[in-house]
Amino acid sequence: MNNKLLAIGTMAFDEIITPTMESGKVLGGAATYIGLAASYADAEIGVVSVIGADFPEKYLNLLTSRGIDVSGVERVTDGKSFYWKGKYYDNMNKRDTLDTQLNVLAAFNPTVPKRFLDASVVMLGNLDPNVQHKVLDQLTPNKDRIVLLDTMNFWMDSQLAPLKNVIKQVDVITINDEEAIQLSGESNLVTAAKTIHNMGPKYVIIKKGEHGALLFYKDHPFYAPALPLEQVIDPTGAGDSFAGGLSGYLATQQEVSAEVLKEGILRGTAAASLCVGAMGTKGLEVSDKEAFLQQLKKLNRLRTIA
Amino acid sequence: MNNKLLAIGTMAFDEIITPTMESGKVLGGAATYIGLAASYADAEIGVVSVIGADFPEKYLNLLTSRGIDVSGVERVTDGKSFYWKGKYYDNMNKRDTLDTQLNVLAAFNPTVPKRFLDASVVMLGNLDPNVQHKVLDQLTPNKDRIVLLDTMNFWMDSQLAPLKNVIKQVDVITINDEEAIQLSGESNLVTAAKTIHNMGPKYVIIKKGEHGALLFYKDHPFYAPALPLEQVIDPTGAGDSFAGGLSGYLATQQEVSAEVLKEGILRGTAAASLCVGAMGTKGLEVSDKEAFLQQLKKLNRLRTIA
Repeated sequence: MNNKLLAIGTMAFDEIITPTMESGKVLGGAATYIGLAASYADAEIGVVSVIGADFPEKYLNLLTSRGIDVSGVERVTDGKSFYWKGKYYDNMNKRDTLDTQLNVLAAFNPTVPKRFLDASVVMLGNLDPNVQHKVLDQLTPNKDRIVLLDTMNFWMDSQLAPLKNVIKQVDVITINDEEAIQLSGESNLVTAAKTIHNMGPKYVIIKKGEHGALLFYKDHPFYAPALPLEQVIDPTGAGDSFAGGLSGYLATQQEVSAEVLKEGILRGTAAASLCVGAMGTKGLEVSDKEAFLQQLKKLNRLRTIA
Repeated sequence: MNNKLLAIGTMAFDEIITPTMESGKVLGGAATYIGLAASYADAEIGVVSVIGADFPEKYLNLLTSRGIDVSGVERVTDGKSFYWKGKYYDNMNKRDTLDTQLNVLAAFNPTVPKRFLDASVVMLGNLDPNVQHKVLDQLTPNKDRIVLLDTMNFWMDSQLAPLKNVIKQVDVITINDEEAIQLSGESNLVTAAKTIHNMGPKYVIIKKGEHGALLFYKDHPFYAPALPLEQVIDPTGAGDSFAGGLSGYLATQQEVSAEVLKEGILRGTAAASLCVGAMGTKGLEVSDKEAFLQQLKKLNRLRTIA
């Protein structure tokens, strides 16, 4: 493993409405959250994404200040950035998408920077599976490589065949519980994980939000609880932060075993808990590595008896 | 601690309808499940309950065969046993009560057998809080005593003042997530646990069904996951089995600390996982101590990295 993490995903403007707050137009996007969350690990991180003329330089600088290589972020000077507007209800477990404007994302043709073509860890963030596929096609061989995929129901509904084609090629899939049920056609998480496992991924991680995450690997599942929180301000980006915390940690390891993956899931959970504590990316922005390790410590205390 | 567990609760006829099965009239009741689940621990167990003329001797013999003292089970020879009929839907997370006939339970005046008046552990199973209170009033002092309470929304709706009066006197409360929200008037489990803690119990255990259980104690919550199961046959009695596995374990200990309680929660979870694997009490009936320890082992594997 060469310590390099290549992350692909959207960079976007989000507008988030919760029962008590409205964010206005703020920084968002899977690649943004993944990058910020992964930066708690001492890995070399490169992000591949696309932005429009309207995307503020300060947002890129935020990533750069966290040591993230943004040379793979293409700016389309005559285009507008991807935009998403969503609204959460009462207990934050349900949300409606109010508006989606693909803009520059519609014709996105990703180019992986040379330096990251041999990355040991590749995190395919939530995005059109055809774009995820184009990234895989560019990579140079690396026998230690671990490819992770995050996806959502939107792509199951609209691009199932290309999605299944990508799923076939990845080692790890992260997917939420409802989506695991949908993708597998099963009605139970254990059988759903088996079915998805048979689609390709060696490791199936099912995210259950406030109820934590389950890793299915061979016959020995692993359960990582989520930190019980007094207040969830905004769940946007929690899944991406989980993917970032996980993949960043994997990139720092000599090799990836089930044990390493489990530890990575705890890192992902810790990053997600920072994320949901504030609006948009703010939770990750204001939390340094010390704060991250503090969450990890709380999480381990939550799991253990003594 | 004197190794004695006193358990109080209903003994009943249940009729259970699930999406794929109908039980017919079978053995049920909180005290039944608590007793069977507690019997995996090497404690001396006494059950206080009430039955009618119609209650088969073989059901009592089942408990006796597990070493449970049923001398505190009063038989009302001119009465009928408590009867409950319920129906579960699709994912087993929702159920409707179709029929409840209190019968002999309506005038139940519990008498604790002499031998269990000084029990170190008292498990007040789900029952009218006025009856729970009458049990507490009979006990002789025991400075090491731990009293646990299980209850449900029915008593919050109909007997809130007596329920709060019992809650004030117990050390441990086990309650499910929705009921914790209802009892506390809070909208979040962390704040709900704090509010319930202020009502009396030192330890607040919130049961989340397939999502495990959370112990709130001081500022350090503990999370016990539930075993991911391929098939849940019948959730009836899962909460009672949890209470039984937990309280039985506590009775075997020299003293009860937070660590002991955490271990007890794992035992409760293991018992509950046996319970839901078959219709009614069958899951507990067919599982011996070896099977129970096997579930506990799986549960510990689920929680740990190495």
